[in-house]
Amino acid sequence: MNTFGHFFRITTWGESHGAGIGVVIDGCPPGLPLDPGDIQAELDLRRPGQSELTSPRQESDRVEILSGVFEGHTLGTPISLVVFNRDMRPYDYSALKDVFRPGHADFTWQGKYGRRDYRGGGRSSGRETTARVAAGAVARKILAGKGIRVLAFARMIGGQWLQDAAVEKLFEAGAAGLDAVASATGLDRLRQAIYASQVRCPDTEAAQRMAAAIRGAAAEKDSVGGIVEVRAFGMPTGLGDPVFAKLDALIAQGLLSLGAVKAIEFGDGFRLAEMRGSQANDPFLRRSDGGVMPGSNRAGGVAGGISTGLPLVCRVAVKPTASIGRPQATVDAGGQARELTIEGRHDPCIVIRLVPVVEHMVNLVLVDLLLSQMVTRAAAGGTK
Amino acid sequence: MNTFGHFFRITTWGESHGAGIGVVIDGCPPGLPLDPGDIQAELDLRRPGQSELTSPRQESDRVEILSGVFEGHTLGTPISLVVFNRDMRPYDYSALKDVFRPGHADFTWQGKYGRRDYRGGGRSSGRETTARVAAGAVARKILAGKGIRVLAFARMIGGQWLQDAAVEKLFEAGAAGLDAVASATGLDRLRQAIYASQVRCPDTEAAQRMAAAIRGAAAEKDSVGGIVEVRAFGMPTGLGDPVFAKLDALIAQGLLSLGAVKAIEFGDGFRLAEMRGSQANDPFLRRSDGGVMPGSNRAGGVAGGISTGLPLVCRVAVKPTASIGRPQATVDAGGQARELTIEGRHDPCIVIRLVPVVEHMVNLVLVDLLLSQMVTRAAAGGTK
Amino acid sequence: MNTFGHFFRITTWGESHGAGIGVVIDGCPPGLPLDPGDIQAELDLRRPGQSELTSPRQESDRVEILSGVFEGHTLGTPISLVVFNRDMRPYDYSALKDVFRPGHADFTWQGKYGRRDYRGGGRSSGRETTARVAAGAVARKILAGKGIRVLAFARMIGGQWLQDAAVEKLFEAGAAGLDAVASATGLDRLRQAIYASQVRCPDTEAAQRMAAAIRGAAAEKDSVGGIVEVRAFGMPTGLGDPVFAKLDALIAQGLLSLGAVKAIEFGDGFRLAEMRGSQANDPFLRRSDGGVMPGSNRAGGVAGGISTGLPLVCRVAVKPTASIGRPQATVDAGGQARELTIEGRHDPCIVIRLVPVVEHMVNLVLVDLLLSQMVTRAAAGGTK
Amino acid sequence: MNTFGHFFRITTWGESHGAGIGVVIDGCPPGLPLDPGDIQAELDLRRPGQSELTSPRQESDRVEILSGVFEGHTLGTPISLVVFNRDMRPYDYSALKDVFRPGHADFTWQGKYGRRDYRGGGRSSGRETTARVAAGAVARKILAGKGIRVLAFARMIGGQWLQDAAVEKLFEAGAAGLDAVASATGLDRLRQAIYASQVRCPDTEAAQRMAAAIRGAAAEKDSVGGIVEVRAFGMPTGLGDPVFAKLDALIAQGLLSLGAVKAIEFGDGFRLAEMRGSQANDPFLRRSDGGVMPGSNRAGGVAGGISTGLPLVCRVAVKPTASIGRPQATVDAGGQARELTIEGRHDPCIVIRLVPVVEHMVNLVLVDLLLSQMVTRAAAGGTK
Repeated sequence: MNTFGHFFRITTWGESHGAGIGVVIDGCPPGLPLDPGDIQAELDLRRPGQSELTSPRQESDRVEILSGVFEGHTLGTPISLVVFNRDMRPYDYSALKDVFRPGHADFTWQGKYGRRDYRGGGRSSGRETTARVAAGAVARKILAGKGIRVLAFARMIGGQWLQDAAVEKLFEAGAAGLDAVASATGLDRLRQAIYASQVRCPDTEAAQRMAAAIRGAAAEKDSVGGIVEVRAFGMPTGLGDPVFAKLDALIAQGLLSLGAVKAIEFGDGFRLAEMRGSQANDPFLRRSDGGVMPGSNRAGGVAGGISTGLPLVCRVAVKPTASIGRPQATVDAGGQARELTIEGRHDPCIVIRLVPVVEHMVNLVLVDLLLSQMVTRAAAGGTK
Repeated sequence: MNTFGHFFRITTWGESHGAGIGVVIDGCPPGLPLDPGDIQAELDLRRPGQSELTSPRQESDRVEILSGVFEGHTLGTPISLVVFNRDMRPYDYSALKDVFRPGHADFTWQGKYGRRDYRGGGRSSGRETTARVAAGAVARKILAGKGIRVLAFARMIGGQWLQDAAVEKLFEAGAAGLDAVASATGLDRLRQAIYASQVRCPDTEAAQRMAAAIRGAAAEKDSVGGIVEVRAFGMPTGLGDPVFAKLDALIAQGLLSLGAVKAIEFGDGFRLAEMRGSQANDPFLRRSDGGVMPGSNRAGGVAGGISTGLPLVCRVAVKPTASIGRPQATVDAGGQARELTIEGRHDPCIVIRLVPVVEHMVNLVLVDLLLSQMVTRAAAGGTK
Repeated sequence: MNTFGHFFRITTWGESHGAGIGVVIDGCPPGLPLDPGDIQAELDLRRPGQSELTSPRQESDRVEILSGVFEGHTLGTPISLVVFNRDMRPYDYSALKDVFRPGHADFTWQGKYGRRDYRGGGRSSGRETTARVAAGAVARKILAGKGIRVLAFARMIGGQWLQDAAVEKLFEAGAAGLDAVASATGLDRLRQAIYASQVRCPDTEAAQRMAAAIRGAAAEKDSVGGIVEVRAFGMPTGLGDPVFAKLDALIAQGLLSLGAVKAIEFGDGFRLAEMRGSQANDPFLRRSDGGVMPGSNRAGGVAGGISTGLPLVCRVAVKPTASIGRPQATVDAGGQARELTIEGRHDPCIVIRLVPVVEHMVNLVLVDLLLSQMVTRAAAGGTK
Repeated sequence: MNTFGHFFRITTWGESHGAGIGVVIDGCPPGLPLDPGDIQAELDLRRPGQSELTSPRQESDRVEILSGVFEGHTLGTPISLVVFNRDMRPYDYSALKDVFRPGHADFTWQGKYGRRDYRGGGRSSGRETTARVAAGAVARKILAGKGIRVLAFARMIGGQWLQDAAVEKLFEAGAAGLDAVASATGLDRLRQAIYASQVRCPDTEAAQRMAAAIRGAAAEKDSVGGIVEVRAFGMPTGLGDPVFAKLDALIAQGLLSLGAVKAIEFGDGFRLAEMRGSQANDPFLRRSDGGVMPGSNRAGGVAGGISTGLPLVCRVAVKPTASIGRPQATVDAGGQARELTIEGRHDPCIVIRLVPVVEHMVNLVLVDLLLSQMVTRAAAGGTK
């Protein structure tokens, strides 16, 4: 199943070492200004080769819009986006044909389909996420028009944390308190700081510790994992379609569908499990404009699967890169023991490149639920 | 969106204080022996009033099969299951009409739809899960025919853990090592032990600590949360449809669509984020029958979103029950401050009753992916 | 697949001789006033036993709303509707267990599923359409709020036609010219005339000829078929989602999913195939308010799968009732020749009872596309 | 909604004068041998410029497979197919920017989306069907592996019919009687004869009459319509998923989603509406191998929405080409009267090029239902 979304449906295709990677977006409203540069800018954020901490591979990743856009605006028809794989070096992949790389999906893929594109991870490669970022860039434009902004950043890498206090400082200084409409300017500045950082962490001190952890692992031909945190500001109340398309349920589906993500939590997450109800419940307050809002955000911006209007807060655990330079024991398809040393230009920490992917996957969920909410509201208005 | 699944599609309906709760299953294969007792037995596991640790409400919850079954077998047509709400006490709910209960979805529901059934949680009530258990009971029968068994249990309640060592002992003694086909008898015995426990934890010592934690909170008119762990045995390789219907992605969607669940992790989960690749990768071994299998299960039975054949292992964080007896500060729909004391017969720890719900939600995902895998296999066989 | 619709999704269930027939509507907007009487009134229109021309069976068909409605308004949650089969006479169906009735789906059903509810047609019975009418009644209320009205009527029965000139007279006198907004009052009066007619034809002279044709066939223990025409007035432009959810494509799917319907045509239909382009093209005119409209309606209100704003016009061919009283040659499941005489209370002309079903199936398509169009418009407004 | 199918899902994209036309197939089984030539051969059948009776446009229409195929076999991953629009002549389309061409979808498209690609029909162009043919070519290979063959041909053009007797002669001589497994060789030969004919009619005499009718209209700068008949041989029993994914319902949706198709009938279609039940019912017979089959095929191979095993028979009415060379009265977007003369290289009879499109649309429906039936059968086998 390579389609995600009910109203803003994306269908992705492409193997890592095939002709290209692409996505068809069905359900994008007509009249949205869109040009390739909007999408290219986001793709550039997940490109490798941007610092010594990521793979030195040079992937130009030029997006082309093949349909759905005319005279600079969307038509309401399917938008077909493609990134051709232009930088494939000639390489002999036959060594990987019959061996299962530990931590990769070669084994399960072979078991499921009986054949696979052994020249790389195929569809299970991180390269598949290129298509999600491309589609997410379109979603992001729609959300921006509604004042919704999503930010992801490295919260932990290789055991080095950006502490709670530092996080709160970032968002108070740069952006949004509970009762404030997030400052668009502050959030834009914070996003720039995130992507100016080699490790996608806007706090310099934490970023240095994280970078050192990556260098330490890389020096030992090993890799590290980490935690990506994502927050959405300017959230309206009402996003999320109970019971199976709840806001948190769809985000969980979307983010767990990333190969390296092994866990997710919303708000205080696992810590909530150890609290008592009197601690965990967010009380309600009167908002300064007379409305109602939760007075704390332990729930992470979602209650009963529907957005509360407070910022969405969510964290995902990213396992360390499976491809490591040190020898590993494995077996081949025939069950024979093999020692495998993975050559090549791999990322010692995939967290860095997952940050924009996580952000755009959340954009895709939010735009889907936003369109859904529009029809609920429009229809309710007409039927009352 | 009240439908879940692509091949074994369930559509649930019903408000907690309405006429009833039900589900329509579309896509159940014909010829499955099924009678109401199969479903009733599973519903009985989530019924309140089974010990002093759950709500004393008496809900008889009798399931009726309205369609899709004839002469004791499924027809291949939609199976309509209903549990009528027969035990509604007359009660004046007008006090809850305009007030938002902290930790509940009253506020977001009102914001989204502009109206709600204020006599209880409506669709956001835990009672909605009755329908999932009923459908899950049908899924469970199909899975059993394929040798797949899902077990859920309380892993932590109120800060009291069933420790790693104790878990491994349970499954080694009772059931399945890595290389063994799980003993069906052992797993059935273990399941009985789980449901014989007041707290759904089969280890007596841990269960006593958990029970004490619940009693402590209840005595203070408060509530506790916890962690439910779920494992699936007898898993074939190949379940999971990349890229958006991955095994872990769909389980995450399914379990996060439960109102009280705030986090999920697979295998070593968040701990993987702090490991190095050389630690986190599961190496491959030659199986005793000559095949291949992972030699450890840090991934929790899933790689690249497809089952590896090792047991599926997953944990969810359950927040403490939102309804507590002690007074809470809140506001009403008009923004006026109110002190709210929730009367009634609430569970001091919802973990107990979520255990069978989590199990059946996983059953529903597994059966959907099993049917999907059948068509892949059948079609591949015919086209090679 | 027992679900229809993308935005206003209905899932139907039930066998003709099972416990009941029902439908779950997911996606109905909140705030719509709805009570059982709204639905009952429409169900009553397809009930048998209303004249000597339909089956004398007495089916009370009382609808119950089990969820999704509170204090007289829809909640935005799934609406579960059920009609219990209360009037089942005890009857020995074993004679039908192994024999395939000509013209019925017993044979194909048995072949597909390997078993069937042989006490009647099961899901292939016309009784299944009860659920569609119930859901259509809800759709009709939403459409009425937008000024859209759908009317179906018998155009031909047993070879007796309501001629073109008579049709045009009906709609000019009672309702809508090309450039006029259809008169709601006129259309309501016309609908009453349709259902006041035994044969669902509002022209007295034609109705008499049709009734005579039915009586003639019934006297010979035979049956007749016919043609149902359906028109929708007050159509906005823009309903229909290219390329696969075109207005005419979805109506064709919906109406061909009725067991007795074997053909469909829009506008001039098959006659268009014999025209030249210069005759078939509808020219465009300036509307009196300055806008644009087609100057003729050979296309039947749809161009490129999108509504033009002119009335939708469509006709379906209904085969004669398969159950006839005269002996028929057939074979049993074992291939043995059998002479079959179908006992019981069957309709000599199913057209009469299909008229409201056709109308409501079109209502269901229109409301689905109307909700879709709302999200397109709302989103386009927000993104320009 | 640009996706069709539930198991073999196609998502099409592309405007007639954009960068290209494409399709993503999701759900194609792994292991199917596939190379671009398989698809190219089918695309070549709908190409213009093949005789003086079609548009002299030269469209090379080279298909490229961008994903889902590796080492000559499908992988089970999405298959992305694209045909780039390489032959666009520079042309000034501004004359068409504000005018609505009679019989085209310019008006409705503009009304729905507020903007359109005015350089041609955009998504409403017949060129969109290129994507369906490309996907249908893959479906055809799967069906061929199961012995199912679909044939379409011109049944009527410009009032010139291929008579019933001639049709029966073709299929008796070339292919399949009721009780015979269709001869694959005979059907392949018949298909060659169809595409060897300028008008896609394998009967020489009728083809000459049809060609003359086209020439007559073309000489007067006008166009003709016609009827395409499609038959499927080697049908198993059991294809079709009641109640909304019935075989005939899905074919109706698929074929009515072609812009020029205005009507469809199965088997005896509209003629059934004038028959009595005793004439219309297909009796059942004992098959020579001891099984059961219908003894006639008035139903067109489908009963209750499920295939009977007899050949599927269906006809669609195709309206005459909307683009004609003679001047037509119309209005522009501002409502001003305009006389429009459509220049360019248009087909005087679109039936010719629709023949392969109709065939492949039916292939797409059949393969979807075939995969569905596989899961029903596989699952039923496992649960009995």
